Amino acid sequence: MYTFEHCQDIINKELEDVSFKDSPVNLYEPIRYILFIGGKRLRPSLTLMGCNLFSDKIDNAIYPALAIELFHNFTLMHDDLMDKSDIRRNYSTVHKKWNENIAILSGDAMLVKSYECISKCQESLIIKALKIFNEAAIKVCEGQQYDMDFENRTDVTIDEYLEMIELKTASLIAGSLRMGALAGKSISEDADLIHEFGKNIGIAFQLQDDLLDVYADPSVFGKSSGGDIVANKKTYLLISALNSKDQELRSVLRKWIEKEKFDRDEKIKAITEIYNKLKLKELTTARIDSFFKLGLKSLDKVSISDNRKIILRNLIKRLIGRKK
Amino acid sequence: MYTFEHCQDIINKELEDVSFKDSPVNLYEPIRYILFIGGKRLRPSLTLMGCNLFSDKIDNAIYPALAIELFHNFTLMHDDLMDKSDIRRNYSTVHKKWNENIAILSGDAMLVKSYECISKCQESLIIKALKIFNEAAIKVCEGQQYDMDFENRTDVTIDEYLEMIELKTASLIAGSLRMGALAGKSISEDADLIHEFGKNIGIAFQLQDDLLDVYADPSVFGKSSGGDIVANKKTYLLISALNSKDQELRSVLRKWIEKEKFDRDEKIKAITEIYNKLKLKELTTARIDSFFKLGLKSLDKVSISDNRKIILRNLIKRLIGRKK
Repeated sequence: MYTFEHCQDIINKELEDVSFKDSPVNLYEPIRYILFIGGKRLRPSLTLMGCNLFSDKIDNAIYPALAIELFHNFTLMHDDLMDKSDIRRNYSTVHKKWNENIAILSGDAMLVKSYECISKCQESLIIKALKIFNEAAIKVCEGQQYDMDFENRTDVTIDEYLEMIELKTASLIAGSLRMGALAGKSISEDADLIHEFGKNIGIAFQLQDDLLDVYADPSVFGKSSGGDIVANKKTYLLISALNSKDQELRSVLRKWIEKEKFDRDEKIKAITEIYNKLKLKELTTARIDSFFKLGLKSLDKVSISDNRKIILRNLIKRLIGRKK
Repeated sequence: MYTFEHCQDIINKELEDVSFKDSPVNLYEPIRYILFIGGKRLRPSLTLMGCNLFSDKIDNAIYPALAIELFHNFTLMHDDLMDKSDIRRNYSTVHKKWNENIAILSGDAMLVKSYECISKCQESLIIKALKIFNEAAIKVCEGQQYDMDFENRTDVTIDEYLEMIELKTASLIAGSLRMGALAGKSISEDADLIHEFGKNIGIAFQLQDDLLDVYADPSVFGKSSGGDIVANKKTYLLISALNSKDQELRSVLRKWIEKEKFDRDEKIKAITEIYNKLKLKELTTARIDSFFKLGLKSLDKVSISDNRKIILRNLIKRLIGRKK
């Protein structure tokens, strides 16, 4: 069976073979640029691995996987512009390297190109793949809108936050796996289970990201950045703290959030202390664990031999940073 | 058979029935807004009329038509943002009424929604419709990029301009008609002819737009705006003038283009005089006529009775402003 690393290699190779016209240069060059400044290729690899659960041949999953990766990079291009982020993967973002209009239009073209990949799927798969893809795509847009709406609110609830990350992040991971399963000719009950698996794992991934911004183990992940704290990003931790019952800590937290001038390290330290007092590391880890277990439960129910599930299960454990 | 007006009514009614979720409000409200501040519904009506050439039942063409109209309005939303236009159809544009991020993301969602309409087509049509739609969509993006590239150039040739409007404007009209024809179960040769018809008519429409900005007959079209002249928009007329052999007129023209401060009416008058001296009204009218005739030639070849072509032919004549 195919390992994650093998799938990543396949995706990188296939992406190089996707032909983009040379001209208009300002439309296609930014697409090549964002695709080749890196990225783990997690989602398309999950499509291949989802297929591989059910079939030894993963060829049918290549175009669905490419569609997913193009779509994901389209969202990055537009999200970076909307978030005014200057840097992605240590490179200038497209709207910085070129300009805002080019980021808008190249992103649009990339979204169309992702549907072009759907149209190149095996004919018996196209209609199903199109529906799954549309569903995931609209959810990602909805999630991004909620995420932007949350910026101007301080009363976001944990449930709203979980719904938002389910839409913005988990739905694409769920869709990636489901398209893979169907490309591998799974029965529809199994495709549903794989979708559920992906959804819960996707939520766990995002909570993990939120946690690592504050508590990354420097020996494993490099230095923790605290970037979310500095930017007042509404993460699981910040929202939990804003909803805590401890009125005093909440008021200290609000003061830090409202401060326009502050020392970066001081703010990170102060807010991390609040998180510590509220035991948010433990709370978030427990939440991640529960989504992780919920996901695995769905994977366990898939009607194939347990042997075929080992690689995928181990990958997820590794990504979630679990030893057992 | 269905008239244009009847098709417009059908589209307006069907658009009202397309359900958009209520929330996130900032994602879906701008979509409803741009769809219902008006518009002639030309493209989707052409889809219905293209279908009606071959079939008395146009139900199969409804979803392809809605996909086209959603796509067209997505391009308007993003183009207005890229062009920094504040007004569309006498209403504030989306990025003005809301903000730029909302215009980006609602536009993205609208593009996804257009593909959702494709996925709702009759099953036997989906794969073909998806391919035609993708082809048209990517061409529209390419055309828009060339159009933006042209803003910074003074050496654009007539051939480059014609290629640009073929991509940006004509390809969607061609695709609208072709999807209609296929929804009406035309043979593929006829669908090709209808596509060619749409392409040439689409080019003629754009040249007509360029002409009317300068020479609209006030009794027919209301006052001519001269908006393209004021904005130095690279139209067929401006490019023709910039490529004229008359060095003196060219240099006067360039001076007007480079002027940062000017009286609006004075500039319109001066540039219109240059166009008059170069006989650009006659030249452009002749060009429109030749594309119009080229288009009709394709329509004539379509293997159905001439009776069925009358409504569509008369509509195009009316839109191109021809009496015979």
